[in-house]
Amino acid sequence: MIAVLAGGTGAAKFVRGLLEVVPPETLTLIGNTGDDVELWGLHISPDLDTLMYQLAGLLNEERGWGIQGDTFTCLTAIGRYGEPTWFQLGDRDLATHLVRTKWLRQGSSLTEVTAMLCARLGVRARLLPMTDDPVRTHIRTPSGALAFQEFFVRERWMPEVVAIEYRGSERARPAPGVLEAIGAAHGILIAPSNPITSIGPILSIPGVREALAERRDRVLAISPIIGTEAVSGPAGKLMRACGYDVSPLGVARYYAGVAGRILIDEQDADWREAIERVDVRAFTAPLRMTDRAAAIRLARMAVACLHSET
Amino acid sequence: MIAVLAGGTGAAKFVRGLLEVVPPETLTLIGNTGDDVELWGLHISPDLDTLMYQLAGLLNEERGWGIQGDTFTCLTAIGRYGEPTWFQLGDRDLATHLVRTKWLRQGSSLTEVTAMLCARLGVRARLLPMTDDPVRTHIRTPSGALAFQEFFVRERWMPEVVAIEYRGSERARPAPGVLEAIGAAHGILIAPSNPITSIGPILSIPGVREALAERRDRVLAISPIIGTEAVSGPAGKLMRACGYDVSPLGVARYYAGVAGRILIDEQDADWREAIERVDVRAFTAPLRMTDRAAAIRLARMAVACLHSET
Repeated sequence: MIAVLAGGTGAAKFVRGLLEVVPPETLTLIGNTGDDVELWGLHISPDLDTLMYQLAGLLNEERGWGIQGDTFTCLTAIGRYGEPTWFQLGDRDLATHLVRTKWLRQGSSLTEVTAMLCARLGVRARLLPMTDDPVRTHIRTPSGALAFQEFFVRERWMPEVVAIEYRGSERARPAPGVLEAIGAAHGILIAPSNPITSIGPILSIPGVREALAERRDRVLAISPIIGTEAVSGPAGKLMRACGYDVSPLGVARYYAGVAGRILIDEQDADWREAIERVDVRAFTAPLRMTDRAAAIRLARMAVACLHSET
Repeated sequence: MIAVLAGGTGAAKFVRGLLEVVPPETLTLIGNTGDDVELWGLHISPDLDTLMYQLAGLLNEERGWGIQGDTFTCLTAIGRYGEPTWFQLGDRDLATHLVRTKWLRQGSSLTEVTAMLCARLGVRARLLPMTDDPVRTHIRTPSGALAFQEFFVRERWMPEVVAIEYRGSERARPAPGVLEAIGAAHGILIAPSNPITSIGPILSIPGVREALAERRDRVLAISPIIGTEAVSGPAGKLMRACGYDVSPLGVARYYAGVAGRILIDEQDADWREAIERVDVRAFTAPLRMTDRAAAIRLARMAVACLHSET
């Protein structure tokens, strides 16, 4: 069994490869819920949805979120009422939020709801939220704090970042199955997601960091940074704001307490020595998932690195 | 100013005609909310929606509910999750429910929300819910009580009807503006809606019956019954269950306390004498709104009857 700590789009690309390399039944994804947002009374879990749609073969892979061929009729009509439409709600996607919200109100936990949604979509891998408790990543900017979706989608990650907060994390417990999956996995992968806003919230849940630290030599992080830039999105900007170098070494440092291994891009081979000095074993491979074949190759390499004894 | 007590589909047809006969600014519709239902956490007001869409020129007039050209992508996806899909939720229609529910949760009353939705859709007539309090029409059947939408849509009004309940009505207050509109109107029309489940809930709100009784000679009911059958829907079945004849006389009797005038179909002219014996003045006109021109003729006739002194 392999456990994967996962955010949204970047993780989904990687998972697409992984599904061709290991049987889905042997995969447990632990998804970030720090990005969750309540809009129009609906509980929206963007990262869980992206992962679930990928696992179900429904993901719009071009955009990296939402459902293939979805329409936006309802959203357009919402706009007609003068309501903000910056959060892209597809009509099919909306069904997920409506059903999730209904089931949560009926008393099921997010873990249970996620499992039921996945079952109805024929998903064979296991998808767990990091926690059933509310944890909300906020981005502190000079003009106030923004919830993650506001910063990322509405403000297109333009505002200056002063600090990151994982609100609610100190009182949150890992969702049922999370610590067990980390403890029982042959290996644990940290997907090439944004360390600060996708993986950071997972690590902020009391008990998760400790469980990973115990398995540290079985934990492999895949770097979302190549050279001195993020492969996509605001990972670089956020790492800098948190005091980390935007480099494979910065990623290795960020994860050093929980991941004994890191997979960095082959062009960054020169960083290996510095990384090994912070007690992290570095492996190299082409990290850019330019197409499905590249994602499969990367997944195969990641699984191999997990098991490598050298 | 004309006030109209209105249900959904039948009332909407009639209102379409009325909009061609009087300026929309002089119309106040008082809509039934006994059919309201909460589904997927959304507050749905089927009758208010039907009336609002009609006033906004958006109604799917062929079906008599929903929005012209709407799609059902979200509903189909909800079905994929195994959730019941008997309540037809269009994608554009859904926006109304999402926005209404959001604004209600933010603390606005149903009256305020209805006014805001109408304003955004450019509606110039005034649409009031009968009450801001929860009143829910239930149909008692031999195997238990059904909420109105369950009886009407899900069970296609097949179950035997034992009794009708307007749950919550005894504690409900008329919405702001309702009694004022009834008091100030030149005339009050009772649309050709189902007396029991569309107009009955409005009459059940404490104060409404009394306000209408005071203006009784200025209140004209348009019969939804022609001969011994309802023009459409379960009006006949429900009147019978409540002990009323399914005839123009039955309608006149049902409304006798609040409406001093009734408009019946020209084929039912023979009922006039019997109706006048229960102290209701009867007028005749072709009631079937087979097309828009017929609806306009009926509306013109109804307005004329309101003002007639003979």
